[in-house]
Amino acid sequence: MASRTPSASPTSARPDRSGDVHGRGRSGDRGAERPRRRLSVDERREQLIAVALELFSRRPPEEVSIDDIAAAAGASRPLVYHYFPGKQALYEESLRRAGHELAGRFEEPADGPLSERLYRVMGRYLDFVQSHGPGFAALLRGGSVAASPGTSAVIDEVRRAAHDQILAHLAVPSPSPGLRLAVRSWIANAEITSLEWLADRSVPLEELQLHLVQEFVAALTLTAAREPALAAELAGFFAGERPDGPTGRLVRDLAALFAAPGIADTVAALASGSVPPAAL
Amino acid sequence: MASRTPSASPTSARPDRSGDVHGRGRSGDRGAERPRRRLSVDERREQLIAVALELFSRRPPEEVSIDDIAAAAGASRPLVYHYFPGKQALYEESLRRAGHELAGRFEEPADGPLSERLYRVMGRYLDFVQSHGPGFAALLRGGSVAASPGTSAVIDEVRRAAHDQILAHLAVPSPSPGLRLAVRSWIANAEITSLEWLADRSVPLEELQLHLVQEFVAALTLTAAREPALAAELAGFFAGERPDGPTGRLVRDLAALFAAPGIADTVAALASGSVPPAAL
Repeated sequence: MASRTPSASPTSARPDRSGDVHGRGRSGDRGAERPRRRLSVDERREQLIAVALELFSRRPPEEVSIDDIAAAAGASRPLVYHYFPGKQALYEESLRRAGHELAGRFEEPADGPLSERLYRVMGRYLDFVQSHGPGFAALLRGGSVAASPGTSAVIDEVRRAAHDQILAHLAVPSPSPGLRLAVRSWIANAEITSLEWLADRSVPLEELQLHLVQEFVAALTLTAAREPALAAELAGFFAGERPDGPTGRLVRDLAALFAAPGIADTVAALASGSVPPAAL
Repeated sequence: MASRTPSASPTSARPDRSGDVHGRGRSGDRGAERPRRRLSVDERREQLIAVALELFSRRPPEEVSIDDIAAAAGASRPLVYHYFPGKQALYEESLRRAGHELAGRFEEPADGPLSERLYRVMGRYLDFVQSHGPGFAALLRGGSVAASPGTSAVIDEVRRAAHDQILAHLAVPSPSPGLRLAVRSWIANAEITSLEWLADRSVPLEELQLHLVQEFVAALTLTAAREPALAAELAGFFAGERPDGPTGRLVRDLAALFAAPGIADTVAALASGSVPPAAL
């Protein structure tokens, strides 16, 4: 069972909540004349979102109640309802924040080998997955009771941010539909792989990080094999890579595999177009 | 706008619905003593499901009403409610049928090169995607108003059926977690690719069919590069392939790409572990 320790600061759990005005309309006084109170309206709203995000990260949305959020925030149930019409609204708002934070992690300076940039981004992404595990899983698995057009929009936005960042780093002038599709498919792969990892955590996170980057390199190569116009881009990509980076390691692993007995001959036969012995 | 032409047989649209008993309890007489009526209880139920599936295939669930289903089935609204408590129940039942049909399309005899078996399966899968387009898209895009734990269960079952069929064809005695993950990721790739294709239909379906199979071959190869225990399996896989099949064509496309100027040297440098000129 996930911990129920609230993440809010200790002061916010005190019974003194005189700074909050219950039952006040949304357009009411925003408290400019109350300099001594503990939390302003904006601060309280932010605190509720932060507490909700923490709880929704630890448990699927159906296992988090408004009472849980109120207790973790050191607030009353009516106070929570004063700020948000219900759990769904609070869920969607905390999700928007999480999505925004995740999208921010995709930003990376355009310096150094491309696979190493992606490797750093994937490190930040997987760190996010790890720290928001159950909430991330409930969200992406779909069919959650809290899934809605609003939550889908957040997911779509995060996927779009990932897609746009990758294309910006690839710096291909007009990316073809095939290249865009390869990027989107790889993003789906990263999601599935993260979900699987959350369920069993069977390998070290660093291994996942490396594998995902190498799968991107493979997807890029496959796309270039289909679209000769991309060959020059791929040449540029490989030229920027280092032997000890994710691409260099992948190339060596594949070279070793294709040197294995039984593979070299068969693949060479397929490459030359002749029929391999076993198929006769 | 999608066509509203009902798929039900012309007879079912006649005003004569004397065979149906409105307002009867679920445990009531199942009509064994009424041999002359047009549709038995079971037949009517099946007809409603078939009509609903047809409508849900053409439009997202939120754009299909019980009235639409009743009209297309030549039935009254109360009659539909007699068989199903509401649209969601009818949606989930029609989805279960569709899922069952789709899972059936994954079955393929264990004869011939593996990539050609998968190519045939993908032909049947893409044919399904094409004929159930909008419904398939609404379902997989998630966040649909009709998404529920019930619909998720159907999607999960179809994915599991695909996964199990592929592993059965690969015939690896105890598939590693890495191999299982590669299969699941590839299934996600097939879903994303189908959704993209539905949105723009920019390439012929046969091209997609070939690309998806080749991506599977690439995923299998990448997994073997990481897991030396799979090298023998991969050798067996390649040995069973034919030059004019999806794998043979992929091998030749990749061989041509790696022979391109700028790529051969750079990749060879990465393979040998030396630093390529551009990285200095």
